[in-house]
Amino acid sequence: MRIALCGGTGDIGTGLALRWTRDTPHEVVIGSRDPEKAREHAENYEDELDDRGIEGEINGFDNAMAADRADVVVLCVPAYHLADTIESIADGLDDTVLVSPAVGMKNQDGAMTYNPPSAGSVTALAAGAAPDGVPVVGAFHNLAAGRLADLDADLDWDVLVVGDDADAKSTVEDLTNEIEGIRALDAGPLAAAPEVEGLTPLLINLASNNDLHDLGVQFH
Amino acid sequence: MRIALCGGTGDIGTGLALRWTRDTPHEVVIGSRDPEKAREHAENYEDELDDRGIEGEINGFDNAMAADRADVVVLCVPAYHLADTIESIADGLDDTVLVSPAVGMKNQDGAMTYNPPSAGSVTALAAGAAPDGVPVVGAFHNLAAGRLADLDADLDWDVLVVGDDADAKSTVEDLTNEIEGIRALDAGPLAAAPEVEGLTPLLINLASNNDLHDLGVQFH
Repeated sequence: MRIALCGGTGDIGTGLALRWTRDTPHEVVIGSRDPEKAREHAENYEDELDDRGIEGEINGFDNAMAADRADVVVLCVPAYHLADTIESIADGLDDTVLVSPAVGMKNQDGAMTYNPPSAGSVTALAAGAAPDGVPVVGAFHNLAAGRLADLDADLDWDVLVVGDDADAKSTVEDLTNEIEGIRALDAGPLAAAPEVEGLTPLLINLASNNDLHDLGVQFH
Repeated sequence: MRIALCGGTGDIGTGLALRWTRDTPHEVVIGSRDPEKAREHAENYEDELDDRGIEGEINGFDNAMAADRADVVVLCVPAYHLADTIESIADGLDDTVLVSPAVGMKNQDGAMTYNPPSAGSVTALAAGAAPDGVPVVGAFHNLAAGRLADLDADLDWDVLVVGDDADAKSTVEDLTNEIEGIRALDAGPLAAAPEVEGLTPLLINLASNNDLHDLGVQFH
């Protein structure tokens, strides 16, 4: 399977690129608005894996070219760039699953709080911006990017997957479960996305109030 | 310390009564609108502990009498009974910490979703209904009542504590940490209560969609 990480030069993209390349046979490509930046980061990821004796080819392109021919596109961009990014890759989306990990937050009375867009959730915003027939799945909202990108760190986290297309969710759940130390859980339909996205400000508050770092979540 | 569980004949009250009595030296009293029902349940709790060789006195009263002279009152009632219950015990509240574990939820498109009252959160609703100077702390929203009440079940869960009064939070965190297998985490001010309460519908969705039971949460 070919996975494109649009905006994959950022924090969450780094961890997903490294771990999917290390833990799975899937092809990872990095997208960015600036193809040169994408190539540079892709090379850095390859170097980091090579230092650990792991062979893996990671290529970088502009977002549209990265998304073209990808089976799964993870939109590793802030919520306010989501619609633009989807528009910029729309022509190449065909039998593609879009994945949205972004969250809206604001600071209120000294705490991070969930700040959804008018669509109700960021995942719903992405679903509204996607071309007809292209399924959108929400996932990877609650991963601590620093620890995800540190290949020395063992993970023991759950990833919550939401969306209305069962096949698309199943594809994303399988890809998630292939990352060592991560378990995918079905968190329900698109209507349940706010509770999933709302976990991210909660994780930030818990980390900052309890002097914990790189906090993830597990359900048992 | 004396802990009153108002509405403590229900599911969450059962588990808290049994575990605080088993695991701590604190005195637990059960409150109900019907004092006879409170006494009956208190006796059942004593019997269950006695069957396990644990001695512990648990008394039952009407809510007002249970709350009177309690250091901590846990409001184990549904959100729509919260204001009434606080009003019914208000005269006896003096240096008392009120604890609110209730959550508002509704079913939407086949998923449980968070449905806060107009106050912004159920904890904020309780804070608005409490007499001046009586601090309200949100806690125990995310405990699976069945497993909590099963003394054969080992727990390994986090309890998230929110509120604006640091001393009151600290009291509740200490009482929480005294229950075996439960860790209290500071989830921030009252403004952060929606994200904590929103975890409950998420837990219900995860349990039902993934065939998991009595699900709790842990952050690491």
